[in-house]
Formats: sequence, structure tokens, C-alpha cells
Amino acid sequence: MGRLRVHNFTISLDGFGTGEGQAPGAPFGHAGERLHDWMFATRYWHEMVGGDEGSVGADHAFAAMHGRGIGAEIMGAGKFGPPGWQDDPGYKGAWGSNPPFHTPVFVLTHRPRPSIEMEGGTTFHFLDASPAQTLERAREAAGGLDVRLGGGVSVIRDFLAEGLVDLMHVVQIPILLGRGVRLWDGLESLEEAYAIEAVSTPSGVTHLTFTARTR
Amino acid sequence: MGRLRVHNFTISLDGFGTGEGQAPGAPFGHAGERLHDWMFATRYWHEMVGGDEGSVGADHAFAAMHGRGIGAEIMGAGKFGPPGWQDDPGYKGAWGSNPPFHTPVFVLTHRPRPSIEMEGGTTFHFLDASPAQTLERAREAAGGLDVRLGGGVSVIRDFLAEGLVDLMHVVQIPILLGRGVRLWDGLESLEEAYAIEAVSTPSGVTHLTFTARTR
Repeated sequence: MGRLRVHNFTISLDGFGTGEGQAPGAPFGHAGERLHDWMFATRYWHEMVGGDEGSVGADHAFAAMHGRGIGAEIMGAGKFGPPGWQDDPGYKGAWGSNPPFHTPVFVLTHRPRPSIEMEGGTTFHFLDASPAQTLERAREAAGGLDVRLGGGVSVIRDFLAEGLVDLMHVVQIPILLGRGVRLWDGLESLEEAYAIEAVSTPSGVTHLTFTARTR
Repeated sequence: MGRLRVHNFTISLDGFGTGEGQAPGAPFGHAGERLHDWMFATRYWHEMVGGDEGSVGADHAFAAMHGRGIGAEIMGAGKFGPPGWQDDPGYKGAWGSNPPFHTPVFVLTHRPRPSIEMEGGTTFHFLDASPAQTLERAREAAGGLDVRLGGGVSVIRDFLAEGLVDLMHVVQIPILLGRGVRLWDGLESLEEAYAIEAVSTPSGVTHLTFTARTR
């Protein structure tokens, strides 16, 4: 059965996965793009946007795990679009006509709408369901491949709290956001369920990988 | 002028420097001794308690910076003793007759008492003063050497917030305490004042060093 995986999920040193004040044009609020500067510097990112520059060190190696063997993604409403997108019946997500997923994507929302087929193999499905139910739907759609849990913060927290995440790659960067949404709230003793590795790299970030001990 | 330094200050992955429920025999509350297992495994620690075992890798190297060139320590009331020690006029701290400081130690408390001279060169002084005033007193006593800021959590936070810390070594370990006292609260953009390095080691901990950019 396909695993549920989290990749390239970046937090500040004080644990915030997004800043305060999310809005159109500011999906991470006051954090801006700072959470992902480490990734923008990698070959992985340059290749995704059509270039061939970028570093090929440890940051690249970690980042490039993102798409391998993924057959579906699950994301929260806050990743699909800015606050209020549910009021726009024509809204089709934050990524243009050819989103970078190329698989079925399951968007958690309390106001589901009909599925939207995009260019490049991405189809957005909308559902109001529990983490376990959502994972079951996504696994069916993934055709034996793994499912990626794309965030945002509270969605990852919810799936962690229910013990559904098999592999998680978190990147901690040396800035203090001070406010926003914390990843680790309500997850006391999470380490009991995972083998955790920490690897800091010359760019200054620390890659934390969580591998479920048993499932 | 002597620098103000923090060493071996350990936090959980979710940022807690101490757990909930501090009491006699449980100075770190529900965290128990887990925050410092990384240190107990080092040669540095074994030597301090009179042995000659322990690892001599990166964890030892970081830990052993603790005492070099230190002429005084500043600590909070919560490190000096468990809640309520102020009501015991004969209380002399949590370390027995020969405390491991061997310098003047300035204890911040709202209820100062006369200084206590201990064996081995440690003298406890008690004062109710601002961080800047306390640092001035400690620097005078340190005789040109550096001053160590010994914690607990809220004391370090207060001195950081006032821009008084020159060098800080924080150790992050892969456990989630879930509750307690957070180190990073109220320190948004702290990275602007420090060059920050992160070094993860095979024991699974990550050493974060903060070096003040200018002073």
C-alpha cells in the first residue's frame, strides 16, 4: 500500500510553517518567500521552472525526493488558494493552467465543488472528509504509488496526530518568524512513533527526516 | 570587555527549554533528564563528575566550551532551586557544598538575601535588578573574563530581547515535549543580530551557535 509522505516542508527555528497575514500574493503571510530560499537555490527547483542552474549538494538531494513515486497529493484549502477562494466559483488554484502536480490532487474544504481537470495531468478534487477518509480516496487514485501530503501546517498536524504519515521531510531554517502557525503544537512524544534523523547542510538549513517505526 | 555567553542550553524540537511541572527532584518538570542525555554521554560530562569515559566527538567539543574563560555566572531563581526555595532561609542551592561553578554566581530573585560563600570558589549573590544592571555587576566580578548566562529559559529570553547576549550555543534534540517554557517566544527576527550556524551530529542532536554580528 502506498505510503503517505511529506516533503520540503519548511519551518522557522521557532517552528512556524507559515507567517501571519496570509492573503492573495502572500501565501505565507509576513514570512514572504524566506522559508523557501534554500529550495530556490537548488538544481531541483531550477529544473522545475525550466532552467539548469542551481546547487546539486545535499539540499538538492533532499528537495528532489518530492516527486519520486507520487501518484496523488492531499492539500488543505489554505494551500489551494488565498482566504475567500471558495466564494469564486471560477477559481482554479494558485498555479495557472498547468499546475506542477501532474496527478490527482485532493483539496480539503468544508465547501466542496465539482472536480476540475487541468492541463498536464492534474485534476483537483474537493472533499470535506476526515484525514483517514481522505487518505483512502487519495490512495485509490494513486494507483499503487505513494501519496504526498502537501500542507499547509494544520493539515500536516492533523494527519500526524492521527498517525497517518509514513515519512516526513521537514526543513528548519535559521530565522525566527515570531508569529504564524506552528507545526509542532499538540504533538507531544511524536518521536516515539518515528526514527528521526537531522542533517545540517552548508547553506545553514537542517533537514529533519521522520520515518515511521512501524505501521 | 568580557562577553556574555550561553552554553549547552538544550531545547526540544518544539522549542521547550524545560517541561511543565518543575518541582524538587524534577528541575525540568515532565521533561525529566531527557534534554541532557546528549551531554551525559560526552567525555566533558564524565570528567566533570570525576570519570574518564564518554565520547570525544563533536558533542564533547561543543559541551566543553562551557567553562573556558568564564569569570562569573548569571542565573534565574528557577535554576537556583525549586519553587519556594525563597521561603527557606538556609537554602544554599541545588548543587551541595561544592557547586560546579567555582566563580561568583549572580542569582536573579525578587527576594534577595545575603551572599553565600560555598566551597570551591563559588559565591552566590542575590539581586533584584534589570538584565543590564545584572550584567554590569557580573562583569565587574568576572575580572576581565567572560560571563556565562546559565538560564533558565525565561532569563535567557530576557537577555536576548535586550540584545545583551554575545554568543549562544543552543542544542536541539529530536523529542517533542509538547508543553513547558519556550525559548523562542517574542524573539521575532533574532537572526538579524546574529550569524547562526547549525551542525547536526551522529547522536541526533543539532548544535546551533549564535554569534553577535556587531556589538
